[in-house]
Amino acid sequence: MAVEKTMDKVVALAKNRGYVYPGSEIYGGLANTWDYGPLGVELKNNVKKAWWQKFVHESKHNVGVDCAILMNSDVWAASGHIGNFSDPLMDCKECKTRFRADKIVEDHMTAQGVEKACADGWGNEKLKQYIDEHEIVCPSCGKKNFTDIRQFNLMFKTFQGVTEDSKAEIYLRPETAQGIFVNFKNVQRTTRKKVPFGIAQIGKAFRNEITPGNFTFRTREFEQMELEFFCKPGTDLEWHGYWKEYCWNFLLKLGIKEQNVRFRDHAKEQLSHYSNATSDIEYLFPFGWGELWGIADRTDYDLKQHQTHSGKDLSYLDPTTNERYIPYCIEPSVGADRAVLAFLVDAYDEEELEDGDVRTVLHFHPALAPFKAAILPLTKKLSEKALDIYDDLRKEFNVDYDEAGSIGKRYRREDEIGTPYCITVDFDTLEDNSVTIRDRDTMKQFRIKIDELKNFIKEKMEF
Amino acid sequence: MAVEKTMDKVVALAKNRGYVYPGSEIYGGLANTWDYGPLGVELKNNVKKAWWQKFVHESKHNVGVDCAILMNSDVWAASGHIGNFSDPLMDCKECKTRFRADKIVEDHMTAQGVEKACADGWGNEKLKQYIDEHEIVCPSCGKKNFTDIRQFNLMFKTFQGVTEDSKAEIYLRPETAQGIFVNFKNVQRTTRKKVPFGIAQIGKAFRNEITPGNFTFRTREFEQMELEFFCKPGTDLEWHGYWKEYCWNFLLKLGIKEQNVRFRDHAKEQLSHYSNATSDIEYLFPFGWGELWGIADRTDYDLKQHQTHSGKDLSYLDPTTNERYIPYCIEPSVGADRAVLAFLVDAYDEEELEDGDVRTVLHFHPALAPFKAAILPLTKKLSEKALDIYDDLRKEFNVDYDEAGSIGKRYRREDEIGTPYCITVDFDTLEDNSVTIRDRDTMKQFRIKIDELKNFIKEKMEF
Repeated sequence: MAVEKTMDKVVALAKNRGYVYPGSEIYGGLANTWDYGPLGVELKNNVKKAWWQKFVHESKHNVGVDCAILMNSDVWAASGHIGNFSDPLMDCKECKTRFRADKIVEDHMTAQGVEKACADGWGNEKLKQYIDEHEIVCPSCGKKNFTDIRQFNLMFKTFQGVTEDSKAEIYLRPETAQGIFVNFKNVQRTTRKKVPFGIAQIGKAFRNEITPGNFTFRTREFEQMELEFFCKPGTDLEWHGYWKEYCWNFLLKLGIKEQNVRFRDHAKEQLSHYSNATSDIEYLFPFGWGELWGIADRTDYDLKQHQTHSGKDLSYLDPTTNERYIPYCIEPSVGADRAVLAFLVDAYDEEELEDGDVRTVLHFHPALAPFKAAILPLTKKLSEKALDIYDDLRKEFNVDYDEAGSIGKRYRREDEIGTPYCITVDFDTLEDNSVTIRDRDTMKQFRIKIDELKNFIKEKMEF
Repeated sequence: MAVEKTMDKVVALAKNRGYVYPGSEIYGGLANTWDYGPLGVELKNNVKKAWWQKFVHESKHNVGVDCAILMNSDVWAASGHIGNFSDPLMDCKECKTRFRADKIVEDHMTAQGVEKACADGWGNEKLKQYIDEHEIVCPSCGKKNFTDIRQFNLMFKTFQGVTEDSKAEIYLRPETAQGIFVNFKNVQRTTRKKVPFGIAQIGKAFRNEITPGNFTFRTREFEQMELEFFCKPGTDLEWHGYWKEYCWNFLLKLGIKEQNVRFRDHAKEQLSHYSNATSDIEYLFPFGWGELWGIADRTDYDLKQHQTHSGKDLSYLDPTTNERYIPYCIEPSVGADRAVLAFLVDAYDEEELEDGDVRTVLHFHPALAPFKAAILPLTKKLSEKALDIYDDLRKEFNVDYDEAGSIGKRYRREDEIGTPYCITVDFDTLEDNSVTIRDRDTMKQFRIKIDELKNFIKEKMEF
């Protein structure tokens, strides 16, 4: 039976089972902010842990950092964010709705059947001209009476110290990348790493988007998992290919279905002026294909900008060839929240069972599942033994315990939150020190010794 | 030999070995922001992981959440942060220096030999009166010509959306606790937890302190590890004692020396009006005793405030007794950055060796050490075998590899970054599949089979 997977269903399950709640909900919320609940924080932590494992601990090239969200404003002058990081906005004078002019143009293009509708990087004049020529009207009220298009910077501004003067004006970082670039020399010097090497970071970033939406897909506050990989100029396209494959494999090994991901290589004319190549991994969300992972070849643009603006030498001296150069940089960048959403959507299924019942199940890879197992005593008389097993396993994994209701109902509850293994303790357990494991995906059951449980789960978590 | 442990030494090591760099350094920094380098991020992640392990995974009472930094401003009206979360500031009209009036008063008290110098919660008038009566002069220029005392709110303000009007005014959260309180019902409902239970959170918070300082001890941007533990009114003092001991044991099990920590119970007159009891665990930093962990009994103050302001029922119905009440709350709250600093300072030592040499060493508990082990081939001829071991261990732990320089020099480098085990690969290894482990603390060496390495390290990491 083909079941339609909708965002509404995923959002409802997320809220009801403690994955994701609306932020500040008792106060009516705050535009598209979200709080991870007890299961959501475990899922998100597992995604971040898996990323750190593969991109830092297991990669002999890379090391990590964790930089401050608040940075000197000169950083954002150098990176171009103060000058160029803005959206073209305009208001409808009739109904007072505010729009992104480039989005209106792109929506119009799409409606006209243009295949790759893209108004990225268009100036205000070009956008206005397109809107006028095509007589685009307000999508909200249908009239055509727009204000001029103005650029609004997407950085959140705040004030450090106790006065609100421009001297104290600082920004919440709109990306984690720049913390890495300004520390390039610090990291290289203290780790004695040789190019090629990478610096990874996980952390919050903030963008004052006018139209956040699609649940946690686009939010003003979000968490990034970024790698800046520094290599010798000329080897960059090869490394770009290497990291494309590395990111792709990461997703597939953690269970993302291959039919739900695709590469989108940016055409030459879509590239930023400094980029040699950019490829996105897109995921097929219920609302359509959306960018999940951007893998960009940023050349030496960022380090050069910071060298110019800071006056500090950011070049690298190759100790074997004695060449001095500014390294090129490959940037695989993925949103942690967006990755969590992709894993959640991908895992979601409704399955018709033999008895006609439908079960909702989250088919998470065991490495990502919030609970690795659930301990279920067949009756409350067995809870002492069951709690012993629970206490022992919790030292190693996050494990659930449930003794309420029929065993069938408990299986359904664990299916719905994605627990891969239900461990049933029955009266035989007291005799043979074995338990029954019930597999979430196959629903098959088998018997296993208690002292083999840890290794069994651990092996299943490998990816 | 007693070696003086100074902040300067710890800060220098932190910078030179990649634990902590000054933030935005190439641009001259940004007042007391800090970036964790490759070793610092591992240490900090290990501290957070250890906390989560003990306070969430291993505690059958608690679950976790991860809430947004940006919240609806009504949250801060209810919590009292908009009204009361401010510092009393005044300027010297002569030299233009700005001061916290309460600090000036406390410094004066301390100089006068008052044992518990505290001006917490004094109003502006009382502060001014004290300053006038005691003829306190400007600590900077020695004159007495102050402005009036004014209250400055400590929250960072920003604007959501594209206009800077007061409607869009929001704040960076000054603490993680409120995200937990506003989700009390959501968490209770979705986890079906019964009181007593706790909700834990790790996340960034921001306070616009006028005098940040002492390295990472007091920073404007910092990370908190907070537990809000909800219990039945009347059982709160018992649970307060329980969590005091739990936190204390956490520190000691992870290697903090007992002589460097102490409890400070707040006297009745020091307590907030809503608090039944508050105890701090203080750590003896090189600059003196400083608050590390605050364990407060906040009664039902926060939930009541939110119930009143939101109009939502935040009471709990006990399913066994059918009693309905607002739970009391115990809040053990510790700064992740401050905990990292305490572990770093505590681990730091300089030891005179038998040959008269001095080694700098970080005696981290293996659970916290950035690298669990370092693989050192005796000569480069052995690097193939050594890399095999390295690749295998890295799947489980963060492990270093070093083949440059004499083995003695390599030991010193690993001592200085706190790696507990150096694993030397020699020519015998090729024959007997064994390696030599050298213990960082005892400097003793012993032989072990390669296939026993993982279990050896894992056991040492337990705490």
